[in-house]
Amino acid sequence: MPTVNAFAAVSATAPLQPITIERREVGPRDVRIDIKYTGICHSDIHEVRGDWGECPYPLAPGHEITGVVSAVGAEVTRFSVGDRVGVGCLVNSCGQCKECERGQEQFCSVKAVWTYGDTDVDGTVTQGGYSTQIVVTDRFVVHIPDALPLETAAPLLCAGITTYAPLRRWGAGPGKKVAVVGLGGLGHVAVKIARALGAEVTVLSQTLSKKDAGLALGASDYRATSDPATFADLAGTFDLIVSTVSAPLPMDSYLLMLGVGGAMINVGAAPEESGLHLRILNRQRVLAGSLIGGIAETQEMLDFCGEHGIGAEVEIIAAEQINEAYERVLASDVRYRFVIDISTLA
Amino acid sequence: MPTVNAFAAVSATAPLQPITIERREVGPRDVRIDIKYTGICHSDIHEVRGDWGECPYPLAPGHEITGVVSAVGAEVTRFSVGDRVGVGCLVNSCGQCKECERGQEQFCSVKAVWTYGDTDVDGTVTQGGYSTQIVVTDRFVVHIPDALPLETAAPLLCAGITTYAPLRRWGAGPGKKVAVVGLGGLGHVAVKIARALGAEVTVLSQTLSKKDAGLALGASDYRATSDPATFADLAGTFDLIVSTVSAPLPMDSYLLMLGVGGAMINVGAAPEESGLHLRILNRQRVLAGSLIGGIAETQEMLDFCGEHGIGAEVEIIAAEQINEAYERVLASDVRYRFVIDISTLA
Repeated sequence: MPTVNAFAAVSATAPLQPITIERREVGPRDVRIDIKYTGICHSDIHEVRGDWGECPYPLAPGHEITGVVSAVGAEVTRFSVGDRVGVGCLVNSCGQCKECERGQEQFCSVKAVWTYGDTDVDGTVTQGGYSTQIVVTDRFVVHIPDALPLETAAPLLCAGITTYAPLRRWGAGPGKKVAVVGLGGLGHVAVKIARALGAEVTVLSQTLSKKDAGLALGASDYRATSDPATFADLAGTFDLIVSTVSAPLPMDSYLLMLGVGGAMINVGAAPEESGLHLRILNRQRVLAGSLIGGIAETQEMLDFCGEHGIGAEVEIIAAEQINEAYERVLASDVRYRFVIDISTLA
Repeated sequence: MPTVNAFAAVSATAPLQPITIERREVGPRDVRIDIKYTGICHSDIHEVRGDWGECPYPLAPGHEITGVVSAVGAEVTRFSVGDRVGVGCLVNSCGQCKECERGQEQFCSVKAVWTYGDTDVDGTVTQGGYSTQIVVTDRFVVHIPDALPLETAAPLLCAGITTYAPLRRWGAGPGKKVAVVGLGGLGHVAVKIARALGAEVTVLSQTLSKKDAGLALGASDYRATSDPATFADLAGTFDLIVSTVSAPLPMDSYLLMLGVGGAMINVGAAPEESGLHLRILNRQRVLAGSLIGGIAETQEMLDFCGEHGIGAEVEIIAAEQINEAYERVLASDVRYRFVIDISTLA
């Protein structure tokens, strides 16, 4: 099997380092992609450090991948060499179960195969986008609209779909008041998308330190959650709250900011138990979750972002800066997403 | 003002007793109802015993009211003397706010006036259906279909709409698997309605003691929540879970019984904080609440129950048995709703 350059974790504690990994030969339904940019998602750090359980080393993370097609299998019809494409969190699923049929492959009842650190249908361990090439079955490859630069499109493959899916599913649009909790990698994209969908957007952040930036991204209001007056002022206000934070939140206080029938959707990864009083939901309020999105939905999101000129705000780094970038992600010192220039791995 | 016989609480601790209460003269938009039957809702007990805060004594509770129209005001067009009618939990609202306009008067942004123990727009304290007559503005009176006996229809005005509204809102119907938690006053009506809507119904009850009854009501499965195997067997099964219990539930265990995109709706009145892990909601699961329903929705529910021959299972009692009935409700010793024969108050 061909080997390609990658940047990978070799243990839960060692810094990531350059290695080579194997990629499979291009099969009849495969697309080989020369990767150009890969975003750094907080999940990458959790995974390689073993926060979510044992992890197969060496492991190249990365599931916010954009690049250019360099080979296609004989049966591939939707992609040609030279196409600008992307790969997100998923690289395989059964394709036949109820969830796959309705385009929600992330919930495949047989097995959704994650882009890195998972076992693919051929038994190999999947390796992600911190690498120069990837070979993916065509169903899990999406087109990047011409209007979107590959570097700002990369984070859309995870941060974009993770926020677009619940915003669409829960009706963000004209006349709706949407709050986005947290202005990080996910939150800043959520603000742009919600605004482009026509909603009136408020950012709820711990402090007002990024207020000017939040308003520039499209929010019409920006409030500090460290100020108790925020919760009193905004009681009953929102149709939709999308929480992108992983820290535990005082759920009752947030839910009370929803109007009748309003919904709070969590896309953060809070590990602790959250407490709430069920009676707060009586006013037809909803607390729900969401997990990335399906492949067709991801293409829809990219097309929407293309039409509206929405990309992530990125800081482009070389591969050798990945370990430093991880520390800055953990310190919330990034506006708003690191993206690796994969040419620095070549 | 005319006085009528009633059965009322005079303090939080004394037994309820016969008294007389005043009813207003019939105004131009009023309907006077000779009450025939009134259901005993658990809320009546909470309210008169001060569990939910201070309560104005003397107070006649009762918000599951059926009877016959005995007078109408000059401007009333939808009701005539002799009509079989009902009154539920609400007797007034502003009629003009966004919530009233969309038929969700229970969330009136000015003031929803509750059927008893509340202050009406004229400043009087509202008195409920443990009485021989009530005078209600026509917008809050509903027709009882001819097919429904007034005694079995009475509990539909609270227990019926409380369960019908979320079952409809969250899509109970053919091809859907619905679980009803608790087989009491609300739960037994929920089973009948969900079955009539075309769903496949499972009852989740602490024990199997009412299993035969539950199956006879229309459930196709009946499981004990005291058995841990229930939660393992039913993991990922339900499209909809309607919880009618007021005791705190292990939320994670219940939510894990929902399939992708499934919803758990709470209509119980759990006073304690509930804990859950938000990650369980990732599979597009929903936790939501609901509170009775609007007036048009209540009429729709009654018409539906009329078409499908759905009434509550009732034990009819005389007024003098109310105190004993309260103790039996608290001991869960009723199948499934006590209904007061108001002729015993005359």
